[in-house]
Amino acid sequence: MNARLDSSPDQLAAAAHRVMARCDELARVSSAPGQIERVYLSPEHARVNRLAAEWMREVGMSTRQDAAGNQVGRLDPGGSAGRDAPALLIGSHLDTVPDAGRYDGIVGVLMALEVVRLLRAPIEDGGWRSPLRFALEVIAFSDEEGTRFGKALLGSSAVAGIWDDEWWTLTDAEGTTVREAFLDFGLDPGRLGEAARRPSELVGYLEAHIEQGPELDRRGESLAVVSSIASARRFQLRVDGLARHAGGTPYDMRRDALLGASEAALAVERICRSEHHIIGTVGQLEAFPGAVNIVPGEARFSLDLRGEFDDERDRVWHAISRDLDEIMGRRGLTWSGREVHSAPAVFCAPLLQDVIRQGILSTLDAGARVSKPGVRGGAPLSTDDPATIFSRAGHDGMAIGAVTDVGMLFLRNPDGISHHPDEAVSTGDVELGIRALAEAVLHLAAEPAS
Amino acid sequence: MNARLDSSPDQLAAAAHRVMARCDELARVSSAPGQIERVYLSPEHARVNRLAAEWMREVGMSTRQDAAGNQVGRLDPGGSAGRDAPALLIGSHLDTVPDAGRYDGIVGVLMALEVVRLLRAPIEDGGWRSPLRFALEVIAFSDEEGTRFGKALLGSSAVAGIWDDEWWTLTDAEGTTVREAFLDFGLDPGRLGEAARRPSELVGYLEAHIEQGPELDRRGESLAVVSSIASARRFQLRVDGLARHAGGTPYDMRRDALLGASEAALAVERICRSEHHIIGTVGQLEAFPGAVNIVPGEARFSLDLRGEFDDERDRVWHAISRDLDEIMGRRGLTWSGREVHSAPAVFCAPLLQDVIRQGILSTLDAGARVSKPGVRGGAPLSTDDPATIFSRAGHDGMAIGAVTDVGMLFLRNPDGISHHPDEAVSTGDVELGIRALAEAVLHLAAEPAS
Repeated sequence: MNARLDSSPDQLAAAAHRVMARCDELARVSSAPGQIERVYLSPEHARVNRLAAEWMREVGMSTRQDAAGNQVGRLDPGGSAGRDAPALLIGSHLDTVPDAGRYDGIVGVLMALEVVRLLRAPIEDGGWRSPLRFALEVIAFSDEEGTRFGKALLGSSAVAGIWDDEWWTLTDAEGTTVREAFLDFGLDPGRLGEAARRPSELVGYLEAHIEQGPELDRRGESLAVVSSIASARRFQLRVDGLARHAGGTPYDMRRDALLGASEAALAVERICRSEHHIIGTVGQLEAFPGAVNIVPGEARFSLDLRGEFDDERDRVWHAISRDLDEIMGRRGLTWSGREVHSAPAVFCAPLLQDVIRQGILSTLDAGARVSKPGVRGGAPLSTDDPATIFSRAGHDGMAIGAVTDVGMLFLRNPDGISHHPDEAVSTGDVELGIRALAEAVLHLAAEPAS
Repeated sequence: MNARLDSSPDQLAAAAHRVMARCDELARVSSAPGQIERVYLSPEHARVNRLAAEWMREVGMSTRQDAAGNQVGRLDPGGSAGRDAPALLIGSHLDTVPDAGRYDGIVGVLMALEVVRLLRAPIEDGGWRSPLRFALEVIAFSDEEGTRFGKALLGSSAVAGIWDDEWWTLTDAEGTTVREAFLDFGLDPGRLGEAARRPSELVGYLEAHIEQGPELDRRGESLAVVSSIASARRFQLRVDGLARHAGGTPYDMRRDALLGASEAALAVERICRSEHHIIGTVGQLEAFPGAVNIVPGEARFSLDLRGEFDDERDRVWHAISRDLDEIMGRRGLTWSGREVHSAPAVFCAPLLQDVIRQGILSTLDAGARVSKPGVRGGAPLSTDDPATIFSRAGHDGMAIGAVTDVGMLFLRNPDGISHHPDEAVSTGDVELGIRALAEAVLHLAAEPAS
């Protein structure tokens, strides 16, 4: 079988417009006035799950919220396989960072729903089925960003069956534990294991996501195949000195923890800039006690390290550690670090990379290239080389890779801005992405079942 | 008249022990479990005012809480002057920084009460009067540190009649304005002016305070005359860049506000260290949006600058501004600063410096020097040179100087630690300080009235 998508241009355009309108609608579900912020197990999480469930039912799916708060819709295939058929998962996440944009994660969930709408087949009683040999499941992961508890990928880790019981005692800024938040949300921590999927239940996992980087925008292309997802480690670091009165303490008696942390942040930049494939970010830094007239006795900061390869990333962390020893020793300070997240590089499955590449090629064949005013690019493309990009950003696939194959499609992200209200994606690129993703699913269905 | 204090050694020792015990008692009035924190117009402020009022009445004073929440006790002189007599104010403040020590400010209020106890004279009906030609007032200022609203000296500024109406709209961390906090506390903002004193009502202001620096400890002396209070400026600075995804944004596209602020903090240290008499401190620094996986798009930090002379301090601020221009320009960032506090150096009145010097000398004459184990020092002192120290720390006298003469007595502060739970003062030094302060009042009373 080499089925081609038979949707009309009008259907595809309507699908893209619906995705954009729903991104706007979800952006209004926020805990922060005038900003977008939705964190794990919050009232906003419950509201977007209800919306997603409604939209899943609208395209004929049965729905459930799993034991980790992920929202799942399923469309069984016809015939004898039915409810026991393995499923292709398509999705992304609905949670956000603080003061977020409206597309990161969200657009991937909404595009998955449109793929189902384009592919589903009617049945006699007026319902719908998957026209493929496998079920289609749309999944909206509940926690990818880790905004609330510091630990990312909680939702997808539960689905992958790699939940660590130590996570139950992680706390948010108010001191609420993950366990307490589960109970407040109406979830039973004792049933968490029910969210885990078995490899035999799954065909694979496909995700569409904005690039969160400038590569496609610089190349003037709309879509890319993702080759791998970055290797990442995150640390919470602490510097201890001595809090003293700002006026009365001469410089020779100061042990200023904030100055130590400031030097550390600059050292991270210097060391990582000297290594081409490593990106290091200090995103949080705070001084304590945090009074205008007290020399800080303590400073805490975060460190996020990403690279394409694990060993390179670890070498950089050791170089940073040595610099911290030197800085803090010279200033009469001490430092300590706690690793809060570690993920090896995840390589996308060759078969899934290939069907996504074919999906992108089919959008070029169809002459469907879009070049809109205000979107850079439009340089001629040869039809045999869709961009292949390594993702420095983390994604749910990093967890899901533990239980099934992962494939990812990137959408052009103007100027590479994400995790910011200015984050954008064009309607034209979303339309191409929906087509590419739907074609990729058809190509996957045409492969011999393994 | 050259009256000498006729108190017995037992009375003085009891006074010092009472001060230390009451410092412990006040330390338990805190909004932060396991720490000391009492801020302006809080429930803890109300509680310590009630305690102070009780102790004022115990030594025969009439009491009132003024229109700015300062607690005041008054002991009229005998004779025809009575309630219209001008008053010598003696006191300090009862508010604290976060995670404070138990002596900064507090010990000065409690020592003032003991001075009244030692000096007061009985009258026929069993009450008490000031034996001097002026009234004695003990004042417990309500806000010296500026912890809650960022602006220091709110309580003493109201008494000095230099309240700025712009302060009504300052907000605390929860967004509560000064005006709202007044109403919540039961104070009428419209009556604030009633807290202001006229110069003709006042003889002067005396304050005992721990040094908040290591100078006396290094010299091995117990007490010092203060010559002037530091010139101080405080700024809230803000750096703006662009919040971007930590993984997807290459270094050449980053405009990281936190790295700019880190360089700025180090520049403050470098510039101030090169100027002998200037101390600069960045006590607060925070990155926004403050997520582990977002390049900070904004950073805010405080700057506290102190020096003995205004022009030197301003020259250093200009040097820092030039460095900020260079740093932020190079990094594609912008910066802005808002001055939140500015106080010229306040010189203590020569007459009040002189009576305090005589008060200190009288403690040496009396052979009352104390050298305790665990307290450094004990080097021989010639009796004609009590230490004279310039105060780098700010004090209520900076505001009160606008309405009357100011004199200050410093107590040795072991290792110079203040604004920290380890802040200390010895009972022996408090005993010497009470004696010196009481003798200073007697010497002042012996001066011809101006």
